Amino acid sequence: MKVSDNRVWISDVCPRDGFQIEPELVPTEVKIKVIDALSAAGVTAIEVTAFVHPKAVPQMADAEEVMLNIKRNPGTRYEVLVPNYRGAERALRTNPDQLNLVVSASESHNRSNLRRGTFETLNEFVEVAKLCAEAGVPVRGGVATSFGCPFEGKVARSRVLEVIAQYLDLGAESVTLADTTGMANPELVRETVRDVKAKWPHLEIHMHFHNTRGMGLANVYAAYVEGIRHFDASLGGIGGCPFAPGATGNICTEDTVNMFHDMNIATGIDLDQLLAASRRLERQLGHQLPSQVLKAGKTMELHPHP
Amino acid sequence: MKVSDNRVWISDVCPRDGFQIEPELVPTEVKIKVIDALSAAGVTAIEVTAFVHPKAVPQMADAEEVMLNIKRNPGTRYEVLVPNYRGAERALRTNPDQLNLVVSASESHNRSNLRRGTFETLNEFVEVAKLCAEAGVPVRGGVATSFGCPFEGKVARSRVLEVIAQYLDLGAESVTLADTTGMANPELVRETVRDVKAKWPHLEIHMHFHNTRGMGLANVYAAYVEGIRHFDASLGGIGGCPFAPGATGNICTEDTVNMFHDMNIATGIDLDQLLAASRRLERQLGHQLPSQVLKAGKTMELHPHP
Repeated sequence: MKVSDNRVWISDVCPRDGFQIEPELVPTEVKIKVIDALSAAGVTAIEVTAFVHPKAVPQMADAEEVMLNIKRNPGTRYEVLVPNYRGAERALRTNPDQLNLVVSASESHNRSNLRRGTFETLNEFVEVAKLCAEAGVPVRGGVATSFGCPFEGKVARSRVLEVIAQYLDLGAESVTLADTTGMANPELVRETVRDVKAKWPHLEIHMHFHNTRGMGLANVYAAYVEGIRHFDASLGGIGGCPFAPGATGNICTEDTVNMFHDMNIATGIDLDQLLAASRRLERQLGHQLPSQVLKAGKTMELHPHP
Repeated sequence: MKVSDNRVWISDVCPRDGFQIEPELVPTEVKIKVIDALSAAGVTAIEVTAFVHPKAVPQMADAEEVMLNIKRNPGTRYEVLVPNYRGAERALRTNPDQLNLVVSASESHNRSNLRRGTFETLNEFVEVAKLCAEAGVPVRGGVATSFGCPFEGKVARSRVLEVIAQYLDLGAESVTLADTTGMANPELVRETVRDVKAKWPHLEIHMHFHNTRGMGLANVYAAYVEGIRHFDASLGGIGGCPFAPGATGNICTEDTVNMFHDMNIATGIDLDQLLAASRRLERQLGHQLPSQVLKAGKTMELHPHP
């Protein structure tokens, strides 16, 4: 993907990070419709599902079914999340365009999520990466809690850099810095990006922000100013925070797209189609979505003079 | 007010801009309690009320009663909004620390709001400013629709600069650039601030953002980067958008304070007290407030390891 100054790439993670926290099981056909609507609207990458144990995350039990029944748009990159070797084996049978791995920079968060230490998990990923290399499927390394840990608070920059280094050693082609529970702020984002770019000037860095404390788009803008061009976002802003019932989750795709379009930065996405998909999703889920543009309309949607 | 690099000043406009759009009349004693809680929390400026015709804005019919019954904290600046000479006469009898005027840079928005043209309104302000000068009360000039008009769309920068020039001519000591219906974006904010500062390098510029399309804090951050140190915000994020029922209004004071504190920028505000006031306000108004930090907690509020 060529990166120019007036173009950004947005990956929609609604089908994985968003649905994962929905209290009710989202029907498989709703998931498939959402994914197909996203690719039809021009979203260039979608995190379709996670190959995790169905007992651990019942919402993702239909991972194979979803992957095998979506319309594969040649312009879309269909990514899947895997936590381990077993998940990678399952995932590779469904022909994904990319496997996304994730480990927490914070030791306690990783133990709470995966029941082992950060570097123990990274060691296990070596075999996963080999499997992917054999299958010719690229791997992206996700660094959860890059900007703060809900148990430990601040996360040392050195931990984030060490995790990235290990990912690159095992063959990851790009990385995602994730603000898992919405603890980043614009200045922290800028400092972090500068430190990572100082070490790896040509690394493709993706940012995964949550809007937990209202700073989602501020963090996107701060990262953009530092040269980041790849962002995760979730249709309708669905997703949440396991530590704060009622708090918002991922940044909202349509709000992010609207901001970039207002700044004359192309996303390749048809915002009207995206809003239509979000409106349908709101009806299908039966509850209001955090999306702001869904309520307020696009910035340049004018009103008749009274 | 001395401006250093790690200090910002936040004016809370909840009692005026926030309450103004509440569908039910907010009881006078609730307004007074909110204002007193804001000053007790260390908010250095509060827009207490508007001296407008009670038929035009019934919610502000108790302007005198509110002004005369709040606890006047010597560290707090009690500002009031006035639309015209009659309002200024009323306001000055209540001993305000400052009068805030407002006119729209967009002609059609001003006609819709005040039934006359932008420069007609500014001409009327000349007499208001004289009255204030005689009373020794400073005047701030508000420029509504500085970043876009819901009827006209883009607003020419030259209009914004002309309005500021007229405000300075009539004796305003500072100005507020207001994003009345949430049409600003971070790049537009930076360009606008640069243009205004290029013309008036020592002017005290305040920013009044709405979070209508989720960009509120992104715009705050962009303005901060350009050297702006004064921001309006509303407790709980109350306020709304007359064109979009359900859309959020003013940026939320506690979300703004939380962001600045995370960036090690002082606000002088006790965030815990502010959150307590917001929680009480939510109960008093009987509906959920858009505040994110109220739901998610402060960034550094850690959780026990499970």
